[in-house]
Amino acid sequence: MAFREKFNAVVDQNKSFVCVGLDPDPEQIPEHLKGSSDPITAFLTEIVAATKDIVCTYKPNFAFFGAHGIAGWQALQNTIKSIPDHIPILLDFKAGDIGNTATQYARMAYDQLGADAITVNPLMGTDAIEPFLAYQEGCAFLLCLTSNPGSADVFRLNTDQGILFEVLAKKSVTWNQAGPCGLVVGATHPDDLLRIRNIATDLPILLPGVGAQGADTNAIVQNGLDANGGGILVNASRSILYASNGKDFAEAARQSAENLRKMLNNARTKP
Amino acid sequence: MAFREKFNAVVDQNKSFVCVGLDPDPEQIPEHLKGSSDPITAFLTEIVAATKDIVCTYKPNFAFFGAHGIAGWQALQNTIKSIPDHIPILLDFKAGDIGNTATQYARMAYDQLGADAITVNPLMGTDAIEPFLAYQEGCAFLLCLTSNPGSADVFRLNTDQGILFEVLAKKSVTWNQAGPCGLVVGATHPDDLLRIRNIATDLPILLPGVGAQGADTNAIVQNGLDANGGGILVNASRSILYASNGKDFAEAARQSAENLRKMLNNARTKP
Repeated sequence: MAFREKFNAVVDQNKSFVCVGLDPDPEQIPEHLKGSSDPITAFLTEIVAATKDIVCTYKPNFAFFGAHGIAGWQALQNTIKSIPDHIPILLDFKAGDIGNTATQYARMAYDQLGADAITVNPLMGTDAIEPFLAYQEGCAFLLCLTSNPGSADVFRLNTDQGILFEVLAKKSVTWNQAGPCGLVVGATHPDDLLRIRNIATDLPILLPGVGAQGADTNAIVQNGLDANGGGILVNASRSILYASNGKDFAEAARQSAENLRKMLNNARTKP
Repeated sequence: MAFREKFNAVVDQNKSFVCVGLDPDPEQIPEHLKGSSDPITAFLTEIVAATKDIVCTYKPNFAFFGAHGIAGWQALQNTIKSIPDHIPILLDFKAGDIGNTATQYARMAYDQLGADAITVNPLMGTDAIEPFLAYQEGCAFLLCLTSNPGSADVFRLNTDQGILFEVLAKKSVTWNQAGPCGLVVGATHPDDLLRIRNIATDLPILLPGVGAQGADTNAIVQNGLDANGGGILVNASRSILYASNGKDFAEAARQSAENLRKMLNNARTKP
């Protein structure tokens, strides 16, 4: 099933815009799991089991697996296997390279790892993005304006076609005609989110930056929803994964995800 | 030894600015190696053995390994192991993510894979680059203006601080004060290379785009050299790796690398 259908179906079923970022940090994994033969998998499969009925997407971030080499890759595969088929998997990779290389990254994400979508860095332009668009069942989430302080350095440059992040949003609307695109917009920028939503009316938007990075959930829901009252993936990673570092970590993660789900749903129905 | 020292030493020793891009494509690997238990390693270790005295750097591109999952990762490790210690390894990854994630990518490249340098995408700004700069022995090669046709879409936008690629070159000079940086400039843009060299007088520049992508070697050497007559890594991948798909592939690869070395050295001494 194509990403967009799968995503809409699970948003309806779980009544949730919560995307859980899977960023396993060995130092923060609960003590009692550290002796496991594969602590990352032991940790994340419990996180998935505890949250799968209240999320809309899981977002494993490649860096946190790649840092552990082959063991990390194995943990990534195992974690992905533990995610129920009906929940979309968005591989966070920020891939960006010339065409023949981008084709390899698309294979890695979709064919090798079985992801439903991938984050893509648009700096290198159209031919670096096209190989991802060729996967009509997938979705390329293009960086538009990220949540970090340094995002101002480049994304906010004034160009003769508008602020760079607006130019990227406009280009993404064009790229979306060739294949499914989404956007990545830091939840730390609610006013800019509204400008971006007005340009990219139909694209799903991944919103990292709530939780550990702090962000106003009311504003991002009200400014981010599309005309159908959907189309947002609100990501939290550390605030859910490390809600507790004790034996109750999975329960605490569920509670944290549930709190976020409620906040987002309340914001959705506000006048 | 720090990347920059290692690089200068091998340029002197091998009298070469040739960087060999290791982009293994299983379809293009010679027929007689395809039955091997690990065709990528079998192929690349022969390429390395045949070229190690006439190159300045090897540049494995992660995508071509990652597309094959764990087997690909193993091949990447094996290939890196086969490269003599005195030759620098530049991991081509175009990494770009927020600080705590970038830290994981830096660990992956330097601690896990043993690279000497890594390519980095600067779109997300300062705090996404800092974790790489913290590795004072490494070198972060920042995308400045890539070789592909789509590079015009974003890198050539006119901003109120200059053309975007000039802005990135200027920022890189600043970032280089915190830790070693290099630049990636497509060899397909020799005039722009001169403008960039005039901004970033001391940074090593990786120049992809000769060979399969075609580029004027005279112009890139004359416009790219730093004040000491060095500081360029001229990358060719496909034109060297796939110079022959027969049993003479390694010899043909050497010949192709040798031809490029000579062309670059001739251009170096032209008036």
